[in-house]
Amino acid sequence: MAPCLSFFFLFLFAFSAIPANSLPTFFPGAAYQSLIKQAKISKPKLPFKTHYFPQTLDHFTFQPKSSKLFYQKYLINSDYWRKGAPIFVYTGNEGNIEWFAANTGFMLDIAPKFKALLVFIEHRFYGKSMPFGKDSYQSAKTLGYLNSQQALADFAVLITSLKQNLSSEASPVVVFGGSYGGMLAAWFRLKYPHIAIGALASSAPILQFDKLIPWSSFYDAVSQDFKDVSLNCYQVIKGSWAELEAMSTQKQALAELSKTFRTCKSLHSTASARDWLWTAFVYTAMVNYPTKADFMKPLPAYPVQKMCKIIDKIPSGATKLSRAFAAASLYYNYSRSENCFKIEHEVDGHGLHGWGWQTCTEMVMPMTCS
Amino acid sequence: MAPCLSFFFLFLFAFSAIPANSLPTFFPGAAYQSLIKQAKISKPKLPFKTHYFPQTLDHFTFQPKSSKLFYQKYLINSDYWRKGAPIFVYTGNEGNIEWFAANTGFMLDIAPKFKALLVFIEHRFYGKSMPFGKDSYQSAKTLGYLNSQQALADFAVLITSLKQNLSSEASPVVVFGGSYGGMLAAWFRLKYPHIAIGALASSAPILQFDKLIPWSSFYDAVSQDFKDVSLNCYQVIKGSWAELEAMSTQKQALAELSKTFRTCKSLHSTASARDWLWTAFVYTAMVNYPTKADFMKPLPAYPVQKMCKIIDKIPSGATKLSRAFAAASLYYNYSRSENCFKIEHEVDGHGLHGWGWQTCTEMVMPMTCS
Repeated sequence: MAPCLSFFFLFLFAFSAIPANSLPTFFPGAAYQSLIKQAKISKPKLPFKTHYFPQTLDHFTFQPKSSKLFYQKYLINSDYWRKGAPIFVYTGNEGNIEWFAANTGFMLDIAPKFKALLVFIEHRFYGKSMPFGKDSYQSAKTLGYLNSQQALADFAVLITSLKQNLSSEASPVVVFGGSYGGMLAAWFRLKYPHIAIGALASSAPILQFDKLIPWSSFYDAVSQDFKDVSLNCYQVIKGSWAELEAMSTQKQALAELSKTFRTCKSLHSTASARDWLWTAFVYTAMVNYPTKADFMKPLPAYPVQKMCKIIDKIPSGATKLSRAFAAASLYYNYSRSENCFKIEHEVDGHGLHGWGWQTCTEMVMPMTCS
Repeated sequence: MAPCLSFFFLFLFAFSAIPANSLPTFFPGAAYQSLIKQAKISKPKLPFKTHYFPQTLDHFTFQPKSSKLFYQKYLINSDYWRKGAPIFVYTGNEGNIEWFAANTGFMLDIAPKFKALLVFIEHRFYGKSMPFGKDSYQSAKTLGYLNSQQALADFAVLITSLKQNLSSEASPVVVFGGSYGGMLAAWFRLKYPHIAIGALASSAPILQFDKLIPWSSFYDAVSQDFKDVSLNCYQVIKGSWAELEAMSTQKQALAELSKTFRTCKSLHSTASARDWLWTAFVYTAMVNYPTKADFMKPLPAYPVQKMCKIIDKIPSGATKLSRAFAAASLYYNYSRSENCFKIEHEVDGHGLHGWGWQTCTEMVMPMTCS
């Protein structure tokens, strides 16, 4: 059985412990933040200027502390802009805004045609946009202000002010977003129709709530991605879970696993190996772009195809687990810079820390596998 | 000069003192609450059953105290309802909900045709729907939760829950409202399009903000109402302000005014007489219904016409002020039950107390006269 199901039960019965891989479309929850590596993320010079906007803490009450201000980061590219022309706004999601600016080339591609101004707004409680500085994640008293409704209001206030400052009130605004950012873009158009004339919401599961869609749809799509390339590939990955489970009852499991997975330090838990594999397959399916890209990790074009090629090439005599490891290495070491893997000690490179809070308050999107 | 202009300046320069008559479409602000009489408001038996809904204090943060519940009053009439048929919801505004239920006959009129369920929801911080009981108006810490966004969210939560409890999720919901309640109805349809398929917003100045419409439009309409009936009538009312102003510099002004206005107790301020007249003319224009009605006060059909008849009949030898008083008496004493007028001591009969807070926080709608 694939691990997602057991994680799903965890999700149901141990709600306070956020099982990140039950919520994968929107990027890592708390547990998985540790699996994202900071050191390897290249930081290219982005064609944007950085600004900070004095933003209101609470848009929906008039309590004395509601009017506290914090500084919200946003990026601007005016290379192609002609006053009065459209303003394209990326409604930032759960990470620092540079990450999305570096990976939303589409907006840069179309900016010259529309003579558009490009604006990337960082979501409150991510990146540098911390309402209470280093104390922002201290408790529910501070984190209580982290939610989508407040974020949408932030965007509305910032866009309105920006247009006034640019004396370009008549410029039509179109919002863009991907994943949770796409949900924000779609909701923004719905909730603030007088501010945005349109929204482009990419990979945005705006209906992944309650029982509106089958809870298995996400993992069905992940499995199908691998099946489409090679049935053997899919079966090897699926079988590797059972091998790992069987192994975990053995005495020498951790030592053997540490060897198989070429870990830099000995593993403390077989769950770490499981999560590490899960991340590789699920995230690679999520970023199975037709071009070379570097969103979660540097990867070649059609990385699922490449992974399955690795699996299918290794003789069937090898264990499924070792073959799954080899495929996962594509995700973690496409750049061939790793001699060993820091499976239990990777760090949060994109500032995703707040997503755990959001998945436990508003973004409760149950998922299971078929 | 009509008094509205001076009040308008008051509004600009002394913002903390809310001049009610700068915001008249939405019913009395703090100053004018004292001009509404409780004793005379008839309380007919309404065809509704009273319910209370456990409502969330703060819909937009996840702070520990946000989840505090209060009991929100709502009224139901299911006399005509057939399960699955439409639900007509009145989005309550700045007063106790019975007041609106008693004066929105249109919904009762059309209910049989649509086999509709009728629901009147009381706005938070009015009537019995007090989040902090008697302390609700204590300070900004409590009043901070009084605003339109929270009220709209209240309606959304209550309607959704009600439909589930009635096992009637498929019933289409149409929201209705008048004045500020109409603004709420229109905004509700915009902000919660998945909950309401339509809105009927009556007398709802949803654009009376910033510089979207001329600030004089409300008072222009009031003046026009009187001009349409009789130019003399309009001129007498307008002239009475000057007479009152000239008089107020005289020594015996208060004694004389008290006599002219047949006050029960001696006046302490000429401004009271001015406000009392203002209320009579503005509110009568606001409720210039073609039928006998009792919204603000009991009045005949076409009360503006009746007022002007009074003014035009009195010989022009009489002062304008005395003629204006005679006309105003129609508003305050149509039922002929008053021997004298409690000009400075009337009470808030509709529970409008919170409107002052709202006009100073969100509902800042500047008005002036031409």
